[in-house]
Amino acid sequence: MNYEGKRVIVTGGLGFIGSNLVLRLVELGARVTVVDSCVQGCGANPYNIASVADRVEVVKADIGEPDCIAEVLRGVPVVFNLAGEISHIHSMQYPERDLEINTLAQMRFLEACIRLSPGARVVYSGTRQVYGAPQYLPVDELHPVNPIDFNGVHKYAATMYHLMFSRSGDLDAVVLRLTNVYGPRMAMDVPCQGFLSTYIRRTVTGGRLQVFGDGRQLRDPVYVDDVVDALLLAGNEPKLVSREYNVGGPQALPLSEIADICTHTGGMAPPEQREFPPERKQIDIGSYYTDSGRIERELGWTPKVRFADGMAQTVAYYREHMGHYLKPGEPNPECKLGPGTYRLMPA
Amino acid sequence: MNYEGKRVIVTGGLGFIGSNLVLRLVELGARVTVVDSCVQGCGANPYNIASVADRVEVVKADIGEPDCIAEVLRGVPVVFNLAGEISHIHSMQYPERDLEINTLAQMRFLEACIRLSPGARVVYSGTRQVYGAPQYLPVDELHPVNPIDFNGVHKYAATMYHLMFSRSGDLDAVVLRLTNVYGPRMAMDVPCQGFLSTYIRRTVTGGRLQVFGDGRQLRDPVYVDDVVDALLLAGNEPKLVSREYNVGGPQALPLSEIADICTHTGGMAPPEQREFPPERKQIDIGSYYTDSGRIERELGWTPKVRFADGMAQTVAYYREHMGHYLKPGEPNPECKLGPGTYRLMPA
Repeated sequence: MNYEGKRVIVTGGLGFIGSNLVLRLVELGARVTVVDSCVQGCGANPYNIASVADRVEVVKADIGEPDCIAEVLRGVPVVFNLAGEISHIHSMQYPERDLEINTLAQMRFLEACIRLSPGARVVYSGTRQVYGAPQYLPVDELHPVNPIDFNGVHKYAATMYHLMFSRSGDLDAVVLRLTNVYGPRMAMDVPCQGFLSTYIRRTVTGGRLQVFGDGRQLRDPVYVDDVVDALLLAGNEPKLVSREYNVGGPQALPLSEIADICTHTGGMAPPEQREFPPERKQIDIGSYYTDSGRIERELGWTPKVRFADGMAQTVAYYREHMGHYLKPGEPNPECKLGPGTYRLMPA
Repeated sequence: MNYEGKRVIVTGGLGFIGSNLVLRLVELGARVTVVDSCVQGCGANPYNIASVADRVEVVKADIGEPDCIAEVLRGVPVVFNLAGEISHIHSMQYPERDLEINTLAQMRFLEACIRLSPGARVVYSGTRQVYGAPQYLPVDELHPVNPIDFNGVHKYAATMYHLMFSRSGDLDAVVLRLTNVYGPRMAMDVPCQGFLSTYIRRTVTGGRLQVFGDGRQLRDPVYVDDVVDALLLAGNEPKLVSREYNVGGPQALPLSEIADICTHTGGMAPPEQREFPPERKQIDIGSYYTDSGRIERELGWTPKVRFADGMAQTVAYYREHMGHYLKPGEPNPECKLGPGTYRLMPA
C-alpha cells in the first residue's frame, strides 16, 4: 500500500472505525490529520488514538463548517470521510439533527473539498441501512435502495452527493456500504448504535444479553480490521472500476448464534429471548447479509476475521480498557441526546 | 372519480402543475385548499387559479412551517404534494436553498401530516431527474437512481421520506416520477425551469429557439392535462399496488423535432443549433424517455395528448394570457434568485 509519507485526512477520526483506520495509517507511515467535531452521540473518544497522539494532527472541527479546516483540506490527495451519526434510533428521535449531520454537513464538506482539493480521492463510509429490508439475499450493489429510517435516507443523500461529484469529475469519490461493524474502540456509552455495541458492553460488564424476536434473523458482522483493509484499498487503488462497494462479514449468522458466541466468549449466562420493542420492530429489516463479490473481484478484498475470533479480541480489548469507554455506575446508559426538539433553521 | 365533496389539499397549488390540478378538482366538486409559499423562483402565480378563486381556499404558507397550516391539515384524506423547487440550475447555484425547500420542508410537512392526518393519501410529484443519465431506455421504475444535480438528490430524499412513511403505515403515500411536463400555466419569468418553458416563451414572444448539441437527444414531453389525470388517479385509487409510478409522454421525440414543432406552431424561423454551454453540459443526461407501463397496468392511465396538439393549446393559452406571466420588456429574463450565498443554519 502506498501510504508512506502521504497526506491523509480522516473525518470522524476519533470515532470507532476512524480511529482504527488512523492507527493503521500511522503504522503505514501516512501523515494523518484527524478532523472530528466530537459531537455528542457520535462516538468520538480521544483515548481511541492515545497511543499515536504524538504522531497525528487532531483538529476539533465540524465538517459542516469547513472554513475552519480550509488549511488542512488544501491539496490533500486522500480523504477518508467517516464523520457522521450512525444511530437509527437517534435519527428517528431527532430527524433534523440527523439531516444536519449526515447531509447538510456532507454537502458543505464536499464543496470545500472540490474547492481546496479538486479531484481528491474521497472514501465515504456508507451503510447497508440504505437498502432497507432486503428483497433478496445476499444483498449486492444492484439491490434497490429503500431506507426505512431517517438515518438511511440522509446517509443515502450524502452517498448521492459523492457519486454525483465523481461523475462530474470534481472529486474521485468512492462509497463503501458497510454492514454491522464491530471491534475495539466502539463507543460503549452510546446505547443507540446497534445491537453489537450493546452485546459487547454486556459481555464485558456482565449484563444479560437479549435477542429480539425468534433470533433467526441473519447478520454478517464484519470485524473493524477487515473494514480498515477495505478502506485502505479503496483509498489506494489508482483507477477504480466502480464507485460503490458493499462490505460484509465472512459469515451470515443468526442473531441467536451471535448472542451465543458473545455469552460463550464472556463466560456468562445464555441470552434471553424477548418480543421486539415496538420502536425497534418498526426499523427491523429481517435477515441481512452482504454480497461482497464486487470488492473482492475489483479490489482483492475479503473479510478474514471470523466472528468468534473477532469477538474474543474485542472482549479482550474492553476488559483492559473499559474504564476509558464507560464510567463506573453507568452499565446500561440511556440515550444521551438531550430531550426536546432539534430544529434546522434557514439563515 | 370520487372527489365530489372531498377535502383535498394541494401544496404548490399556485404553481404550474398544481394550479392545473386545482382547476380540475374544482370541476370535480372537491373542497380544495391550496397551500403555497409563493417563494421566489418556484413558479407560483395567483392568476393561474383566478377563474376559480372564489371556490378555493388559498393559504399562503410554507410547508416547512407546518404549524401555520395545522388547522387545514387536520383530518384531510388526500394531499397532493406538489410544492418544491424544480430548477436544476438553481439547485447547483444554491444547494442549501434546494435542500431546505425540497428536503427539510418535506420532512417537516410529512411529520405534520402524520400527526394531523395519519394514514392520509399523499401524492408526491417526483421527477425523472432522480434517474440521472439513463442506463437503458425506456426508463422504468426499476432503473437505478443516479441523480446528477442537487435537485435530483434532494427530491429523491423527499421521495424516500414518502416511501418510508408508507412502509411504516404512517401515511398512504405514492410518488409519481414525472418526465418533462409542459402546458398552460408554466412560469414564464423563471428561466431556469427547463428548456420547454424557454421554448414556449420564445415561441410566443418571438425569440429564436436554440437546440444544444446535435439535437438527437430524445425527450418524451407530457402535457399537463395528462399529468393531472395521473395525479387524480393516484389520489383516488383505494388500494395501490405500487408506491412509485413513472409518468411520461406519448412520444419520444428528438430535441430538434420538439424545437421544429414549436417553431412551426409559432410560425417562426427554424431553431438554431448550438454547442452545449458548459454548465448545462454538466447536467445533461443524453436521451431520456419513460416506460409508463406500470401506471397504465395498475391505474389505467395513458398519456393522450400528442406533442404538436399540446403545444398548439399551450401557445394559444399564452397568446391570450402572456401579460400575466411575463412583464413587457422582460422577454428573456435572467435567473431571478438574488446573488450571494444561501446558508441553512442550525437553530
